[in-house]
Amino acid sequence: MSHNSFGHLFRVTTWGESHGPAIGCVVDGCPPRIPLGEADIQPWLERRRPGQSRFTTQRQEPDQVRILSGVFEGRTTGTPIALQIENTDQRSKDYADIAAGFRPGHADLTYELKYGIRDHRGGGRSSARETAMRVAAGAVARKLLADALQSRTMDAPLRIRGALVQIGPHRIERARWDWDAVDRNPFFCPDPVAAAAWEDYLDEVRKAGSSVGAVIEVVADGVPPGLGAPLYGKLDAEIAAALMSINAVKAVEIGSGFAAAELRGEDNADEMRMDGGAVRFGSNHAGGILGGISTGQPVVARFAVKPTSSILTPRHSVDRTGAEIDVFTRGRHDPCVGIRAVPVGEAMLACVLADHLLRHRAQNPDAPVTARLPRH
Amino acid sequence: MSHNSFGHLFRVTTWGESHGPAIGCVVDGCPPRIPLGEADIQPWLERRRPGQSRFTTQRQEPDQVRILSGVFEGRTTGTPIALQIENTDQRSKDYADIAAGFRPGHADLTYELKYGIRDHRGGGRSSARETAMRVAAGAVARKLLADALQSRTMDAPLRIRGALVQIGPHRIERARWDWDAVDRNPFFCPDPVAAAAWEDYLDEVRKAGSSVGAVIEVVADGVPPGLGAPLYGKLDAEIAAALMSINAVKAVEIGSGFAAAELRGEDNADEMRMDGGAVRFGSNHAGGILGGISTGQPVVARFAVKPTSSILTPRHSVDRTGAEIDVFTRGRHDPCVGIRAVPVGEAMLACVLADHLLRHRAQNPDAPVTARLPRH
Amino acid sequence: MSHNSFGHLFRVTTWGESHGPAIGCVVDGCPPRIPLGEADIQPWLERRRPGQSRFTTQRQEPDQVRILSGVFEGRTTGTPIALQIENTDQRSKDYADIAAGFRPGHADLTYELKYGIRDHRGGGRSSARETAMRVAAGAVARKLLADALQSRTMDAPLRIRGALVQIGPHRIERARWDWDAVDRNPFFCPDPVAAAAWEDYLDEVRKAGSSVGAVIEVVADGVPPGLGAPLYGKLDAEIAAALMSINAVKAVEIGSGFAAAELRGEDNADEMRMDGGAVRFGSNHAGGILGGISTGQPVVARFAVKPTSSILTPRHSVDRTGAEIDVFTRGRHDPCVGIRAVPVGEAMLACVLADHLLRHRAQNPDAPVTARLPRH
Amino acid sequence: MSHNSFGHLFRVTTWGESHGPAIGCVVDGCPPRIPLGEADIQPWLERRRPGQSRFTTQRQEPDQVRILSGVFEGRTTGTPIALQIENTDQRSKDYADIAAGFRPGHADLTYELKYGIRDHRGGGRSSARETAMRVAAGAVARKLLADALQSRTMDAPLRIRGALVQIGPHRIERARWDWDAVDRNPFFCPDPVAAAAWEDYLDEVRKAGSSVGAVIEVVADGVPPGLGAPLYGKLDAEIAAALMSINAVKAVEIGSGFAAAELRGEDNADEMRMDGGAVRFGSNHAGGILGGISTGQPVVARFAVKPTSSILTPRHSVDRTGAEIDVFTRGRHDPCVGIRAVPVGEAMLACVLADHLLRHRAQNPDAPVTARLPRH
Repeated sequence: MSHNSFGHLFRVTTWGESHGPAIGCVVDGCPPRIPLGEADIQPWLERRRPGQSRFTTQRQEPDQVRILSGVFEGRTTGTPIALQIENTDQRSKDYADIAAGFRPGHADLTYELKYGIRDHRGGGRSSARETAMRVAAGAVARKLLADALQSRTMDAPLRIRGALVQIGPHRIERARWDWDAVDRNPFFCPDPVAAAAWEDYLDEVRKAGSSVGAVIEVVADGVPPGLGAPLYGKLDAEIAAALMSINAVKAVEIGSGFAAAELRGEDNADEMRMDGGAVRFGSNHAGGILGGISTGQPVVARFAVKPTSSILTPRHSVDRTGAEIDVFTRGRHDPCVGIRAVPVGEAMLACVLADHLLRHRAQNPDAPVTARLPRH
Repeated sequence: MSHNSFGHLFRVTTWGESHGPAIGCVVDGCPPRIPLGEADIQPWLERRRPGQSRFTTQRQEPDQVRILSGVFEGRTTGTPIALQIENTDQRSKDYADIAAGFRPGHADLTYELKYGIRDHRGGGRSSARETAMRVAAGAVARKLLADALQSRTMDAPLRIRGALVQIGPHRIERARWDWDAVDRNPFFCPDPVAAAAWEDYLDEVRKAGSSVGAVIEVVADGVPPGLGAPLYGKLDAEIAAALMSINAVKAVEIGSGFAAAELRGEDNADEMRMDGGAVRFGSNHAGGILGGISTGQPVVARFAVKPTSSILTPRHSVDRTGAEIDVFTRGRHDPCVGIRAVPVGEAMLACVLADHLLRHRAQNPDAPVTARLPRH
Repeated sequence: MSHNSFGHLFRVTTWGESHGPAIGCVVDGCPPRIPLGEADIQPWLERRRPGQSRFTTQRQEPDQVRILSGVFEGRTTGTPIALQIENTDQRSKDYADIAAGFRPGHADLTYELKYGIRDHRGGGRSSARETAMRVAAGAVARKLLADALQSRTMDAPLRIRGALVQIGPHRIERARWDWDAVDRNPFFCPDPVAAAAWEDYLDEVRKAGSSVGAVIEVVADGVPPGLGAPLYGKLDAEIAAALMSINAVKAVEIGSGFAAAELRGEDNADEMRMDGGAVRFGSNHAGGILGGISTGQPVVARFAVKPTSSILTPRHSVDRTGAEIDVFTRGRHDPCVGIRAVPVGEAMLACVLADHLLRHRAQNPDAPVTARLPRH
Repeated sequence: MSHNSFGHLFRVTTWGESHGPAIGCVVDGCPPRIPLGEADIQPWLERRRPGQSRFTTQRQEPDQVRILSGVFEGRTTGTPIALQIENTDQRSKDYADIAAGFRPGHADLTYELKYGIRDHRGGGRSSARETAMRVAAGAVARKLLADALQSRTMDAPLRIRGALVQIGPHRIERARWDWDAVDRNPFFCPDPVAAAAWEDYLDEVRKAGSSVGAVIEVVADGVPPGLGAPLYGKLDAEIAAALMSINAVKAVEIGSGFAAAELRGEDNADEMRMDGGAVRFGSNHAGGILGGISTGQPVVARFAVKPTSSILTPRHSVDRTGAEIDVFTRGRHDPCVGIRAVPVGEAMLACVLADHLLRHRAQNPDAPVTARLPRH
């Protein structure tokens, strides 16, 4: 991944600042003849859109996506797909007082040190607003994956889903995991009991002008085996980069992740047996990836989002002139940016899988799309 | 990162299998006139070399590196540096019985499904042996960093160090952290008390033919601010990819990492004050990176290594024909591959920093090398 | 160069079709704090704009560029610069009859064979309209080069110019070369005598509904030595790719080019002498590039543009169904697309030089900006 | 193309200096299960090997290639293929007197200005010796292409051939073109009559200690339609870069090339008719490429090689200290390096086609491999 592009064959380039006239992206390398319209993208943007509950920022961003190229008569043409969203609700005044000061936890200082200039309005380029374009690109990736895999003879279609599994110190109970619950609460929480408890908790955080972190789990079912380009384009390495590139993310793990460090070899081994001609695993500590290549099991990744840096409590800082100041943020902010990171994480996973599906079929066009043996 | 290369300007390509005639790498993009000889690389290989204690594999690999190009009269020329190590201690017979079977936790199955062929001897391309070339490339990166930063007026030189902070369920006591202790025990453990206790623990694991995971922390002090190419070449994203691409790694975190999810915004904020003209932080939850760009604080990353998959206890598996089998491994293996991952993690961090230093100075040649304000 | 992006550090991605709502590009990797506004770009677009004489297509495209990101308070920020031009004068009906048929010399057939779909309106993605974005990106590259080199102690600033040196079989007389003449005739011709003669010639071609090819020469004076990344990022190799990627270009040469094949070694040698501390060459057969690296002499490249494929004379062809047809084009077309290729060629050269200037200073930050010796 | 690598999916990285211990390359991204041994590569190296006639340098380089990785039991594994040739016949003393001086036409000066250091022995990195690795990589590319296309139902297999069509001012008579003649004379000349005449001519040049340039034509028959990644990965753009990156090449053209500039649109149009369900062209001015995408016709490219720069006649130059000197070369050199560029040009074309075949099938897996219509 380089500068503002990611992906090798399915290549996404994003541009735009929080308070500029628009944000956008170019999706290059998408195969042709895939049905695609704005209606395929908009619903995913709606999931990420702020202002939908009291637990996300109250900015009203219509986030209406336009397709400006690469689609003809409702189908992709194989040429670059330009997507664009105009910025409308820009209250630049909220940010006037942070033009000179560096907000702790934000990129203000580092952009200043790196570039010697920054668009401070709303965080400029480092604003979470950019993640809308990730979600838009992810919607295209989902279409690509569905199109590429539609004809395979498998039980399950490829499906990419995400959920909030921890908010502050509060974890879900995994035994209560219910994917259907995810869209029935404002947290994308798969545990209805936890979701109910989290409302009070996050209300308290929000009213205190504070914020809190979160952990998101993203899961892709129906991933064909063989995705991943070892050794430096490993599927897990690229998922890690993709998730870590999301604003405020500080940690990524695959499968058992950090917990694997505590396991013995016997316990961490995902045993294999045959099932209807295909390899079936007894467990999934590996998170669906071995040697950097997908196994055919669900790909499972988790990532941690730090608490929103914009808070009401004053914190020590400095400004551009080197003066010592105290900073607090009055603007409209999410008490937990981790919530809206759920659709963003899904989108990044979709983009990585789309890219690797193309890369895999370039090198291995006749590889099996299920974990079936023997191939010889 | 793409296929078997990583880095954008400081670009490393590795090749070779565990039991082929040799392994090697090409380091491309290194600046010229940097003093470099085999003696600059060999010591780092020695740190990683197996067979140095009873806690690592008893294979005897001299791992003697040769520089085949890119160096003239003791200095780099700016052309590709080819490094090579001949493979000598190859007991292919140890692996004869796993030619057909898929070892749980290994890449055997996925290479088979992806490529329809694999060099099974010693794990072939997916062997941890490849990490020797990462360490060799990392040694070049260290020289580059030292050369590039030698003239700056800073307190501290850039220094990249790593340590084992957890083995199985046993964590170090961070209050006892002593960098000097790291090289005085067979674990690269910075806590002398923990190191002593780990000997018995790992002896037990080893004698049982079992294995255990670990967590490694890598720290770079003296990193100039400004490194990182947001949004998709963020420094933390590329560190995450680099560390996750190491064999058996399942998780990566930066700074407070997963623990940040539990924090409140007030507690996670790294407050800033001025100190001698430069910005000084009161804490380092960010792990030295904000908005994907280095702050000038120490860059801190941790990664988890799963337990060695090769164990004596038989595990269910299948073979290439689809027959169900039980697998156990007789070969010489590390009871904890995490130990030897310490120098590998350091090397990957060095490579990422070297690459970003070049990228940064291409775009921002007059950016400050310390966090000094104001620049205007 | 990959898909729809080119450049390694100064990276340009273009998108858009001739008859879509807009065309655009993203310029990524530009250094910060360079003064940039739409007024810096628009004049270059004007030079390329059609409809300015009877020798170019009569389409009226205002080609008004907008900067949508990457610039703050009149200066670049180091983040992606999005440029966009709305398409306005779209007479899609002109192209209705070529929806199914393949025009000889056009990309109709190959897009159909590659993608199985194509936006036929105005040539879709393969329209020369896309070259407007190359010119826009080239304007940014010029600003970057001027900014980067402004402080050097050199006689001449970097200057990139182009001229038409041949139209059909008619060549200029090089002894009459006058750069000032270039903007005083509708051909960008540096030979005023030839330019006058060409008017009648091209009028005849135009009235016959025919078309003719051309040769363009682009020259960059004041290029610092050292640009080029051998062996596969050689400056001449990337110039060749950049120029050959322009619509209708069929040939590229550097310096003496094909004529060098006829020379003896003695005659082709560019002899060197010292002049004021710098190396001075007695000739420039090399076109300013040796071993893929700029020498400090003018970089000289020429490229051939084939005759416009859209002509009134019917030509045999086939259509999507495999039926044999005859094709001729009624639309508004340039009798010689080579004319408007002059500013496009200049822009591509500017982009390549900008990219290599960044790459060079990443690896060799203290290399001389003039051909001065000794460096030791 | 970047630094010392080229190709996007079929990616070749070369390393090594003329007088270092060895030269080598890494071929990454090759599909698995392709039969490959040293015997598949060596014959192509033999064609390029010096010392086979009095018209090439008398250096005796056995050029014995070794495969060090990526092949298992005679077939590629999908992992990086490392190829290596040891350097044996190194008479460094021949070059002692040019350690400080800059030979006109060579890269001596530019390496010095760029890097401030150079391995002067035999030209170091810029030696034509490096082209042996291009030929080796090209041999792998040929195997890939044959394997990928073997099952298609076409008349002709893909075949890549090259020939010398001009030496100094002497051109072949195209009516006498006979591919079988190419390997029957020391010039790779397809015109037996011309070849006979060239012997005397080149003897004169050689005995005079002079040198002369040449033009090479490379042709690929049986190329499937659809190869090329517009707009910046166009097939012709990447062929141009690949050929221009060969030592001493100053010009590249596709199809009619520069001659197209002189043509009228009516004459340049390659008319189409149907022939057995496939599109058949009446001519091939386009050189098999339209809009940057292959048409299915033969891909035809020509490139010009300047006269060997190493000659006996003294030429003015300067040295590292800025002293004015006269330079002539006593070493063993080719009177026409263009001759041995024939197999190198073929190899580069093979590599570009192999890369684009992989890229094309990633995006368009079900595209036709012949120019058959309709696809709908």
